[in-house]
Parts: sequence; structure tokens; C-alpha cells
Amino acid sequence: MQFEILVKDKNSKARRGELITAHGKIETPLFMPVGTQGTVKTLSPRDLLEAGVNMLLGNTYHLYLRPGAEEIAQFGGLHRFMAWDRPILTDSGGFQIFSLSQLRKIDQEGVEFQSHLDGSYHQLTPEKAICIQRQLGPDIMMTLDECLPYPSTREYARHSIDLTQQWAIRCLEQWLNSEPRYNYNQALFAIVQGGIFNDLREISAGNLSALNFPGYAIGGLAVGEPAEVRNQVTSLCTDILPGLKPRYLMGVGTPADILESINLGVDMFDCVIPTRNARNGTVFTNHGKLNIKGAAFKSDQDPIDRDCTCYTCKNFSRGYLRHLFNANEILGLHLATLHNVSYYIQLLGQARDHITTGDFTQWSKGQIESWRNQHG
Amino acid sequence: MQFEILVKDKNSKARRGELITAHGKIETPLFMPVGTQGTVKTLSPRDLLEAGVNMLLGNTYHLYLRPGAEEIAQFGGLHRFMAWDRPILTDSGGFQIFSLSQLRKIDQEGVEFQSHLDGSYHQLTPEKAICIQRQLGPDIMMTLDECLPYPSTREYARHSIDLTQQWAIRCLEQWLNSEPRYNYNQALFAIVQGGIFNDLREISAGNLSALNFPGYAIGGLAVGEPAEVRNQVTSLCTDILPGLKPRYLMGVGTPADILESINLGVDMFDCVIPTRNARNGTVFTNHGKLNIKGAAFKSDQDPIDRDCTCYTCKNFSRGYLRHLFNANEILGLHLATLHNVSYYIQLLGQARDHITTGDFTQWSKGQIESWRNQHG
Repeated sequence: MQFEILVKDKNSKARRGELITAHGKIETPLFMPVGTQGTVKTLSPRDLLEAGVNMLLGNTYHLYLRPGAEEIAQFGGLHRFMAWDRPILTDSGGFQIFSLSQLRKIDQEGVEFQSHLDGSYHQLTPEKAICIQRQLGPDIMMTLDECLPYPSTREYARHSIDLTQQWAIRCLEQWLNSEPRYNYNQALFAIVQGGIFNDLREISAGNLSALNFPGYAIGGLAVGEPAEVRNQVTSLCTDILPGLKPRYLMGVGTPADILESINLGVDMFDCVIPTRNARNGTVFTNHGKLNIKGAAFKSDQDPIDRDCTCYTCKNFSRGYLRHLFNANEILGLHLATLHNVSYYIQLLGQARDHITTGDFTQWSKGQIESWRNQHG
Repeated sequence: MQFEILVKDKNSKARRGELITAHGKIETPLFMPVGTQGTVKTLSPRDLLEAGVNMLLGNTYHLYLRPGAEEIAQFGGLHRFMAWDRPILTDSGGFQIFSLSQLRKIDQEGVEFQSHLDGSYHQLTPEKAICIQRQLGPDIMMTLDECLPYPSTREYARHSIDLTQQWAIRCLEQWLNSEPRYNYNQALFAIVQGGIFNDLREISAGNLSALNFPGYAIGGLAVGEPAEVRNQVTSLCTDILPGLKPRYLMGVGTPADILESINLGVDMFDCVIPTRNARNGTVFTNHGKLNIKGAAFKSDQDPIDRDCTCYTCKNFSRGYLRHLFNANEILGLHLATLHNVSYYIQLLGQARDHITTGDFTQWSKGQIESWRNQHG
């Protein structure tokens, strides 16, 4: 994997770059829709391509439990299983183990948990996390980390970053000492932890940086902490992490969160907000978000967003979408999701363009203020 | 509306034709997927076009109750509301009033019913059925008829065909004496009733034929009667109905039912089977139907049907589809529906081709036997 920074913004830490993966070149800053179970909910691969999506995130925890990593390998890997031939990043499964499953035991060796699907017992170690991701075949794999709840004590967080560091080393060794299952290389990103404690984030970011991973993620944020705290921790991390490596802020966020984080030097994002919100009827526009189920849209012949070029906005009215939600029609979920994902992709494209033209800070500030006013 | 018969089969009553509607020319025999609430469930208009769909059915009862016929008219009619610019046929609402709603009263004037959605009271008369369909704007409207339950007594059915005949006359007058709401003409088809009683079907088909409607439907079948009875009644009706007018067998059916009915001289079909079955995981193939949720398909790397050219079969395995259903992913419903609709459309295309090449009877017989053997 190669990463090249093409343009650096003069007024912020924002940068525009290119990431070359086994499944093609992608431009950063980049947003990855979440394809938890081998599909971005309600969208087919061709819908994703049309929305401009270049890279997806897959959830190792879900895929490992159902249908199973070796099952997916029998189909030729996740790309072929889901018919997506562009880049994929998978997480290590850690986050879902700590948030979804019944956690049984965590020690230096690894973590034991019970499946949220059937209560079956499983163990995940750093080595196994890499083996599973070798079976799945993403372009970018993630190290296994301990995901702290928010809030956590400083003492627990101090202990935790040591564990995350040891696990990162073991993942690195497993990665270096194992062959890809398919005929292409897979990169490995490490994850900075440390909760909201600056000194712990410094230690974690510094120690991981010394290991020279191909890329780095900032984990453990977007879990309930105030936005200012998240921004401050993010900024601290991007100051320490190697300047020439891609930086991925996991699980972030709203359109405003993303623009703020690009300002702070983040290159990659994933989040369920555009897809999950769409299924609740919440759609994003340049003039704020709105819930399409509202009675106010009953007779509204405008598209969701006049500025949007997606299939939904080019063909359907708010009134029609409201009808579909009101009548529990699946097409409503599909069209709203397609719009929201397209909206995010278009937003990131605008961000890249504004980095190139040199007015990113000004543009993003105006855009964020406009949303904040609309959101009341 | 114009209808032209291009080829007549020598060994059966099958015929190939062309129907020219306000929204374009369509080839018959033709299958119309059902778009009950202004959408064919899980499919967008571009999915339908890609599947080869040329004409849809809309349900007047559902659209009248939600979002409302005048509401749809405010959006420019059903075509624009749902972004479908090819032909649409709407039923009159009668069938759903008799099957879905709480029927309150039926007399010569019309029918009173309670909405299945909110219990609200409504009256539908022949005149109102036409007015509503003028608001919706389909290319083909249907007369209001009384839909008999199966079984019904001969006495009730005798009374009923008189009512259906009177209502057909009132619909015809309302149609002739009202202007289209939009800038194109709408055709009106009458519906033959009479249950499973040959003499009543003869009377109904004969009396309606005398009124010179642009087309005729055979109603009141596919409601539980044996297949032989349905075929016999269908054949009787197509013998009596005007030979140069299109014939539409409402609510039929399985692939085998459709081929049998084409043999009997039917030109148009609609049915929820391909869409509803898809959402239950049942998909159609040239070698019989199968339920994709079955454990047998867990590791199956083949497409649903190797002979099928649809997006689903060109890109996804049975194993992946099984995973999507197993994981309750909406994409599974979408891909299965897309396949089934494509399958029906391809089947009707083959039927038309075989009518042209002169071996329709032989081909359809072989196809039906092959399915019957597979279905056990």
C-alpha cells in the first residue's frame, strides 16, 4: 500500500492525498460506508458505485460469526462474496466484542466472548484477528485493540494502552509472518487508544508510531465524549502520528464532525450515521438534516436536496419518499440510504476540492455554521 | 389505445401482439409486476427497466387510501409520483375492497367499506372508480366489478353478473363523458365475472363484449378454484370475447399457470407471486423453484439460475443470497425480487419468441412438465 500527500492546506492540518491499495487508488479524505454483514444495508454494489463510494468497511466480528470467515474464504474472500471489487477495510472485531457481545474474560492472551446471535463462546487473540482478516481478504486490516467504555478511569486506561500496544506488536508479527490468502497484499493499521487522557494518548500514539505500521487509526472516540474533547484528542494524535502515513478516525461521524476532523489532519472515516439515519427517515442536505416522515413533506414536490446529484434527488420528491416511509415500503429505506451515502461522498469530494483550491478552512467553517443553525 | 395481433399460434389460441398505449408500445403476451403502493416492493424504476419490465399494475384501493388520489394528482399523476414513464394499468379497487377492507354494504349504487388502515368509512361507485383513476392517470383503467368469493352459490353469482354489467355500463359512460386529467388518453377495460359457472361466464362475456370496450379482463379467478376449472373458464371466456381485443387474466399466476393461459389466448397478466415469493426467499428457475434460505445453499457458489441474465444472477451466489436472508438484510429481498421479476419477464419473452417460431405449444408443454417434476 502506498500513500501520497498531494496538497496540504495552509490554514489547517487538512491534507489531500492518494491511497493506493490492492483494489485500486482512492482519494483522501475519504468516507467509507459501513457494510457490517457483507452489504451496506439496502444498497447493491452498483448502487454504491453510482453513489461514488470507493471503499467500504466490513465488520470482522459479524462476518466471523455469520456466515464465518472460512466460509467467506471458500467463496474467494469478502470482495467476491459480496461482488465488490474496490477496496475494503475490515476492523479487527474488537469494538463489537466490547459493545455487542457478552464479554466473558479479557487478559493478556486475548478476549473471550459470547456471540450476540446464539450465545456460543469464542476466543479472539491478536493472532487470530489477523488470521480471520487474512481469510476475509480486505485491502486494509486492523489490529486488535481494547476498546474502553466512556467514561473510564485513568488507571484502567493506563493499563489498557499497554495491552493494546502488546496486541499491536503481536498483530504486526502475525501479519509479517503470514502469507496473504489471495493474490494481493493486505496492509495493517494500528489503533491509538488512551481514552480522553492526553498523556495516555501521547504514549499510545508515540509507541505505536515507533512500530512503523502502514497506517494509523484513532480509536475509542465517538463513544459519548463531548465534541470538544474528541477534537482535542484527535488533534493531539495527528500531531504525534507520522505525517506521511494515513490517519483514520474510527466511527466518526456527522457531516460537521467529519469536516472538523479533516481540519485536524484526518484522512479516513467510517460511520453508520448516513445509513442508519436514512432508515429512520433522517436525510442530510446542505441546509441541514430533515426527517422525511414529517407531515410537512406530504405535498412537497422538491427533491431532498436540490443541489444533490444522486438518483434519489434526480427522480423523486420528498412527498413520494414520505409516502414510502409512511407505507412501510422498503424502497423508501433504499432511496434515503442512497441519498445519504451519496451526500457524504459528495461532501468529501467538496472537501478535497476545497483543500486543493486553498479555501478549505473558510468553506468548512461556513458549512458547519450553516448546519448548526439549521439543527437549532 | 391500439392493439394489433402479429402472430397467431397454429396449435393453440396463443397469439403474439402489440399494445400501443399513451406511454409507449408493449409486446404481448405481457406480465405486469404489481406496484401496490406506488412501488413494486424493493425495486426502483431503474431496476424495473433493467429487468425488462414494460408495464406495471397499480392498486387503486391502496393509492386512494394512502396517500390519496388527489394527492397523487397534485404530483402530476402516478407516473410522475413514482418516476415511472412507461405504461401503467390500475385496477378499480374492487378486488381489495372485497378481500382486504371491512365490507359494509353493497347495493346497486355501489359499495361501502371501512379502510383496513384506519377503519375510516368510504363509498365507491362505478363513477367514482373512474374519477379516481382519472386522478391517478394510468394508461389503462378498469371497471368496478363485484368480486365473488370462492365458492359462491349459482344464485348469488347470477345476481352478481347483472350488477357487474350495470356497473360496467356506468363506468363506460363516466369514461366517455369525462376528460383525462393529463394530456393523454386512458383506455378502459371491462371485467368478466360469473364464478365457475359456464353459463354465467357466457352471459357476462357476451354482454360486456357488446359494449365494445377497448379491452377485457377475466376476473374472479385464481381465488382458490382448481387449476382445471380456472383453465376451463378462461378458455370459455377467450372463446367469447372479441378476438381483436386484448385479454387480461387478473391475478394469475405461477410460471406454469401463465404458459397454460397463454395457450388459452390470454395476452396480459399480473400477479404478486414473483415479488411476494421473493421476499419469502422463494426464487424461480428453469429447473423449478427453490427456497434460497435452505441450509443446502450455504456453500453454493452458483447463481440462482445459470441461464438467467439478471443482475442478481450475473453477480451473486446462492450462498451469498442465503447469507443475506439469514442475516435479515434488505439487500436479499431486493436481489431475490429483482431475479424473480426478471425471470417472469424473460419467460414471457421466450413465450413470445416461441409463438413467432411456431413451436409455442411444444415448448410450453415441456417447460410446464419440467417444473411439475421439479416441484414434486
